[in-house]
Amino acid sequence: MRLATLRDGTKDGRLIVVSPDGNAYAAATVGTLQEAMERWDEVAGQLTAIAEFPEALDPAQLAAPLPRAWQWLDGSAFQSHGDLMDAVLGITKPKTDMPLMYQGTSDKFYGPRDDVKFGDEALGIDFEGEFGVIVDAVPMGISAADAMAHIRLVVQINDWSLRTLAGPEMKTGFGWVQAKPPCGMAPFAVTPDELGADWRNGRVCLNLNVDWNGQRFGAANGEPMGHGFHELVAHAARTRDLVAGTVIGSGTVSNPNFREIGSSCIAERRGIEVLDQGDPKTAFMAFGDTVRMEAVDTAGRAPFGALEQKVVRA
Amino acid sequence: MRLATLRDGTKDGRLIVVSPDGNAYAAATVGTLQEAMERWDEVAGQLTAIAEFPEALDPAQLAAPLPRAWQWLDGSAFQSHGDLMDAVLGITKPKTDMPLMYQGTSDKFYGPRDDVKFGDEALGIDFEGEFGVIVDAVPMGISAADAMAHIRLVVQINDWSLRTLAGPEMKTGFGWVQAKPPCGMAPFAVTPDELGADWRNGRVCLNLNVDWNGQRFGAANGEPMGHGFHELVAHAARTRDLVAGTVIGSGTVSNPNFREIGSSCIAERRGIEVLDQGDPKTAFMAFGDTVRMEAVDTAGRAPFGALEQKVVRA
Repeated sequence: MRLATLRDGTKDGRLIVVSPDGNAYAAATVGTLQEAMERWDEVAGQLTAIAEFPEALDPAQLAAPLPRAWQWLDGSAFQSHGDLMDAVLGITKPKTDMPLMYQGTSDKFYGPRDDVKFGDEALGIDFEGEFGVIVDAVPMGISAADAMAHIRLVVQINDWSLRTLAGPEMKTGFGWVQAKPPCGMAPFAVTPDELGADWRNGRVCLNLNVDWNGQRFGAANGEPMGHGFHELVAHAARTRDLVAGTVIGSGTVSNPNFREIGSSCIAERRGIEVLDQGDPKTAFMAFGDTVRMEAVDTAGRAPFGALEQKVVRA
Repeated sequence: MRLATLRDGTKDGRLIVVSPDGNAYAAATVGTLQEAMERWDEVAGQLTAIAEFPEALDPAQLAAPLPRAWQWLDGSAFQSHGDLMDAVLGITKPKTDMPLMYQGTSDKFYGPRDDVKFGDEALGIDFEGEFGVIVDAVPMGISAADAMAHIRLVVQINDWSLRTLAGPEMKTGFGWVQAKPPCGMAPFAVTPDELGADWRNGRVCLNLNVDWNGQRFGAANGEPMGHGFHELVAHAARTRDLVAGTVIGSGTVSNPNFREIGSSCIAERRGIEVLDQGDPKTAFMAFGDTVRMEAVDTAGRAPFGALEQKVVRA
């Protein structure tokens, strides 16, 4: 099942169920995705049963599947990304088996065709292609094994990042605030079964195609996460209940063969340039630049639809 | 004006206006504090005009003034606290004039008499007495001077902290997730004018009396913040719009003469013990322990009421 949210002038929009071909929709039996997450056991069956899709779907009318959430916790589960970032930022992190995670702004997720406003190109504007999951209510102290069943939806995210601010904030130990403005979300939130065999071990085993200004920039696969999403959920819930509708992110999708398949963020390419050539060569984004992210399966189908955003001056 | 929220079985509760003596209340003209923050210019005058308080107030019926918020950003604006924490945790932070800030869990604030559940005493259960402000909608890029007018309410907070987890999380550079479970809030959210001359330079210039198991533990004053709340708000809004109802915290209230006036968290006392005696002597909280926090003015009045919580086993 694929769910999306139509803009209707309210902050949470109106939940819809999307047809298998992604071109049509039906009204949902519950008003918003937040409400669906709070009443998942009750409404999932109703939503799944919908088989008629009478309305044509225009991606330009879509908000993020979850336009705002009570909580967004983003991991950094791809080791090759973390290693490159540390090399560029001059960070030496202690060795740990613990998932890395910070809490980010969740009161707004950009829709899949929204322009994104920034005040200054000098902030080092960068995209980060990620996968994420949305959980129903998760009790504090849950095990990773038990957390798996709370993963109700999978989403595709652009975690906008301001690199000039990221290093200094990280060095304070307090994590990121200014470096992490709101994220964007691809059109469709999908149930794990919608991904079929590409949902394995709590991982989205799909290539994430990333195009910057129409040029392929990366096609990393989501499988090599050091911790699966169920482990990230359990980590997040160690000392707090997770409210229904909490979004948990993978961090930038990255593979060890990044020199062949490219990257899901510019900072990573710059890291490779530093390693290979001594200095970063690729500039960050400029006003007017676009980025398109679309995970595809081996049949060429894009379960989350395409996330297409343009950077504009605030 | 003092506002509070009555439990009514809903997640946001029901907003009330509290009498000057704190013993009675009247229904508000708007349903919830979140809605009041979104419509502040329209509703503040109506709320301020309420002069009859027909109902008796029982603090046990109160939720947090804002039982959940879309965003909670906590600073660390008291230098003497930061210096002690760094000494204890073995952290060397770069010198910076930038306010320190992390984003914490905001989907739940404990009410002023709620028990607080933790899974394990070995986590290093600690309180942190703080002040905070609640803003209406703040545009990205605002100046500190302009941010002052967006500070609509002032609150008193207990930022529960798990010290065993805090150091390792801080050293990752990602900030705190597990170390920071939900906070508690004192009964009343007050408009800055309610504090009179004790609201100065964006600071709450009151002593915060902290009692642990009925013994006075600290009485630090809120004035020596390195950055005022208006500066913290501007820092938070540098690269994001702040949604109405965003809560911004001061960090643990601390004064340089901590050996005389005590501390607002146990970790700080332990830091003093490390400096003075080589090792920490004071243990963290045990199940059954209580903490009471109450800011008082020189006339002995407590504008926020008393925040009284007990630690219990989850």
